[in-house]
Amino acid sequence: MTPPKSYPLYSPEHFMNEALKEARIALEKDEVPIGAVVVCENHIIARAHNLTETLNDVTAHAEMQAFTAASGYLGGKYLNECTLYVTIEPCVMCAGGAFWAQLGTLVYGAEDPKRGYRLVEKQLLHRKTKVVSGILAADCGKLLISFFKSKRNG
Amino acid sequence: MTPPKSYPLYSPEHFMNEALKEARIALEKDEVPIGAVVVCENHIIARAHNLTETLNDVTAHAEMQAFTAASGYLGGKYLNECTLYVTIEPCVMCAGGAFWAQLGTLVYGAEDPKRGYRLVEKQLLHRKTKVVSGILAADCGKLLISFFKSKRNG
Repeated sequence: MTPPKSYPLYSPEHFMNEALKEARIALEKDEVPIGAVVVCENHIIARAHNLTETLNDVTAHAEMQAFTAASGYLGGKYLNECTLYVTIEPCVMCAGGAFWAQLGTLVYGAEDPKRGYRLVEKQLLHRKTKVVSGILAADCGKLLISFFKSKRNG
Repeated sequence: MTPPKSYPLYSPEHFMNEALKEARIALEKDEVPIGAVVVCENHIIARAHNLTETLNDVTAHAEMQAFTAASGYLGGKYLNECTLYVTIEPCVMCAGGAFWAQLGTLVYGAEDPKRGYRLVEKQLLHRKTKVVSGILAADCGKLLISFFKSKRNG
């Protein structure tokens, strides 16, 4: 669908910056700083950040909450026309959620060499999901690395 | 911990029957009939059934809701002293959730040859999670098979 003329056509960096804003909100709450937005037709329909500590709930990753919120907004559980922007490569759980949602496009910033879904050889995402990586990777990664560094030193 | 004397020591079949009750509640709602309970010290602390259609949310698998509810009950996000009883082998998403929760024991009924987490060669569960399978497998599987059969014929 062509977006209405009133919307400027935003770049992937624009949306990743919005995901970074969410990651910084997580950081302020002393949560692992990961943020996500879901975009549909060049428009943010869901925003979320990691809340596992605040909610005492391992399932409260930014991506999972973003899927729930986006589906709520759309009134349907499939996100095949949506793009998830997330600051860090999703884990296996979130990749599994993206599979069930039949996510249209996954855009992530920095890789997660410890828990990223790509460590699993088998294809975890839906076969139709496009993947773009490395958008503002340095900024996204830096936030996470300095968080864990401060935890180790604190 | 030794359970208080007032609790009878229930069998795995007892708890799987409780998970099956949840699966039947899902069926009544025309949901894919999968149910789960979380047990801690021989006591059910969370019950859940699949609600993906009702909630329009692919993340609303029985297991994920059970993790959230159990963590809420315990006031902590780790379930290392808990057992999840679920009627069907968990998918990759739910296995990922079990990993983060550091689930103590996973007990499932019937295997899922299409979407079960064991289709992934890499170890998805936490290294300390014990796994028991096949408890009331026929009953658990029958419920699911007849649901999909009725969907195909309906």
